[in-house]
Amino acid sequence: MQHGGDLGEAASRFGGSDAAWLDLSTGINPHPWPVPDELRRTGWERLPSGSDLAHLIAAARTAYGVPPKAVIAAAPGTQTIIQWLPCLAPRRPVAIVGPTYTEHETVWRGHGFEVEQVRSLAEAGDGGRHVVVVNPNNPDGRVAGRAEILAAAANCRRHGTWLVVDESFADVEPGCSVVRDCGELPILVLRSFGKFYGLAGLRLGFAIAQPSIAEKVARALGLWPVSGPAIAVGTAALADTAWAAAMRGRLASEAEKLDALLAAAGLEVAGGTSLFRLVEHPRAGRLHEALASRRIWTRRFLWSPTLLRIGLPPDEAASVRLANGLSAALREIDAAYHDQGTRTGAP
Amino acid sequence: MQHGGDLGEAASRFGGSDAAWLDLSTGINPHPWPVPDELRRTGWERLPSGSDLAHLIAAARTAYGVPPKAVIAAAPGTQTIIQWLPCLAPRRPVAIVGPTYTEHETVWRGHGFEVEQVRSLAEAGDGGRHVVVVNPNNPDGRVAGRAEILAAAANCRRHGTWLVVDESFADVEPGCSVVRDCGELPILVLRSFGKFYGLAGLRLGFAIAQPSIAEKVARALGLWPVSGPAIAVGTAALADTAWAAAMRGRLASEAEKLDALLAAAGLEVAGGTSLFRLVEHPRAGRLHEALASRRIWTRRFLWSPTLLRIGLPPDEAASVRLANGLSAALREIDAAYHDQGTRTGAP
Repeated sequence: MQHGGDLGEAASRFGGSDAAWLDLSTGINPHPWPVPDELRRTGWERLPSGSDLAHLIAAARTAYGVPPKAVIAAAPGTQTIIQWLPCLAPRRPVAIVGPTYTEHETVWRGHGFEVEQVRSLAEAGDGGRHVVVVNPNNPDGRVAGRAEILAAAANCRRHGTWLVVDESFADVEPGCSVVRDCGELPILVLRSFGKFYGLAGLRLGFAIAQPSIAEKVARALGLWPVSGPAIAVGTAALADTAWAAAMRGRLASEAEKLDALLAAAGLEVAGGTSLFRLVEHPRAGRLHEALASRRIWTRRFLWSPTLLRIGLPPDEAASVRLANGLSAALREIDAAYHDQGTRTGAP
Repeated sequence: MQHGGDLGEAASRFGGSDAAWLDLSTGINPHPWPVPDELRRTGWERLPSGSDLAHLIAAARTAYGVPPKAVIAAAPGTQTIIQWLPCLAPRRPVAIVGPTYTEHETVWRGHGFEVEQVRSLAEAGDGGRHVVVVNPNNPDGRVAGRAEILAAAANCRRHGTWLVVDESFADVEPGCSVVRDCGELPILVLRSFGKFYGLAGLRLGFAIAQPSIAEKVARALGLWPVSGPAIAVGTAALADTAWAAAMRGRLASEAEKLDALLAAAGLEVAGGTSLFRLVEHPRAGRLHEALASRRIWTRRFLWSPTLLRIGLPPDEAASVRLANGLSAALREIDAAYHDQGTRTGAP
């Protein structure tokens, strides 16, 4: 399983229609921005105009607090921007602060770049390499401090390399964003629209950087990069600051409830953001499968046998289902362990 | 004016709200596939799954008659595929059969490729260069024959170059498509969903080629390249063969009516497809402006002072408005010419 949000593997291995599953494998807000019916009908027929796109970008500028010196490129999802970076950045090695979202490494390597995973920005070196940091990090929620990021960016400026700061989950922790700093330094900030606004299928994301970097991204994306519906909905949703503020509060409170639920099940929370929690369990793979056999789909990681990411349950019924599922799954794993212990004579 | 379909320049130079304009500057079908309300609500929230995309690609395979050996990559519009080609194709010079859609030349040149515009596939040479042909061609509707295309493709195969056949307007002339041939030869066919289905804002297009080429495109596009709404609507619309057949007939008949209207105005039709006509007039720039002063937006070309492209009027009222606008505009141009003649003493 390479990514969350695709029930294909779930259904093929464990059966059940999509509707039978409780999908907690993503970090997408289960409470989408309420799209008015009129906006569901806007932008389908004609090509988006330059002024449509300019309105979207103006809304993003305000919502994200982009400084006047920085330029914004809109894309059909942050993944599309990630795909382009190795074609646009100078040919230098890349340091990725990880473990993190694996696509960064996959894409740079796919273009023949030398990539090393480092544990922190400090370890990324003196700027001779491009640096990629996901902030807050997915899946552990670790936040790199602003001073640390600016120091890394200053290093990059000296060497002509780029600091990519993937802020896909920063909407729930706006204080950690370095958007305000990206007009002066070679910081390329990625912002995802779909995760916080709960509209990941719409495909909308932004690259924010000083003109010399952001304009390269915009030129690569070309004409009409974003769909008409995404422009219409993105423009309206990004301007809805009341919804965003209320949603941040709601998600924080629901994430706390999820913590309580996980603690009651005896699981240790190892990190996360308001959109997901990361739990630690010595048999995380077994736990993943035991939950899947109950049609609860979580996210495990090929690089860790002990971590499991669990998205926010969408409602009370889903919370109850998760609590019951966890309790039964953990009993099952314990029983199998004891049974095995008895059979082999171990204590 | 670089492209049709953006009323920004129209409004800024000639005034009027978008609604005041009759936009005939594009080749987009003014009679969109009727999107059911249910499909307007599908695919917005969750990430598109692998099986969603597989269904779309299966629908495209049937609709376009793609041979089993060829692979299809779905993209958010054919423009996105054009953007990627110079990053994926071997570094060789490019011959573009033109004049044609200018983005091909712009994008290859933007990546430092040597580009020459040639007048025909025969002129494109022996395969030492990549070849780009738009078929039927935009804006003149010229069709390259299948034998000619296969000969060019065989040349390309010998030299390891690619033959890009942009079939963005082939839905109205399916007989000219070489999709059936692209499993064996290095032909990369581009198909546009938005033009024929009248849903250009949705952003959907396809690259069809033998696996070694199409898989490069798919890898470059990456995960979740197409939005959920585009997948849902594209899958349903491409399967609606009855609508497509009826629409081809309707567009052909409306294009004939447009021919009659243009002939009645005294204009010579120099080519086109069922989605637009190209007219020739010694003062095409003046005609464009005289129509624009009547809020009728047509497409002129920086590379030709005598050509004007006119899209299908969406209904009878628009046809009447175009006929009246043309008649008044041409009288105005004639009067100015005679007036100037009188003033300067010319005959």
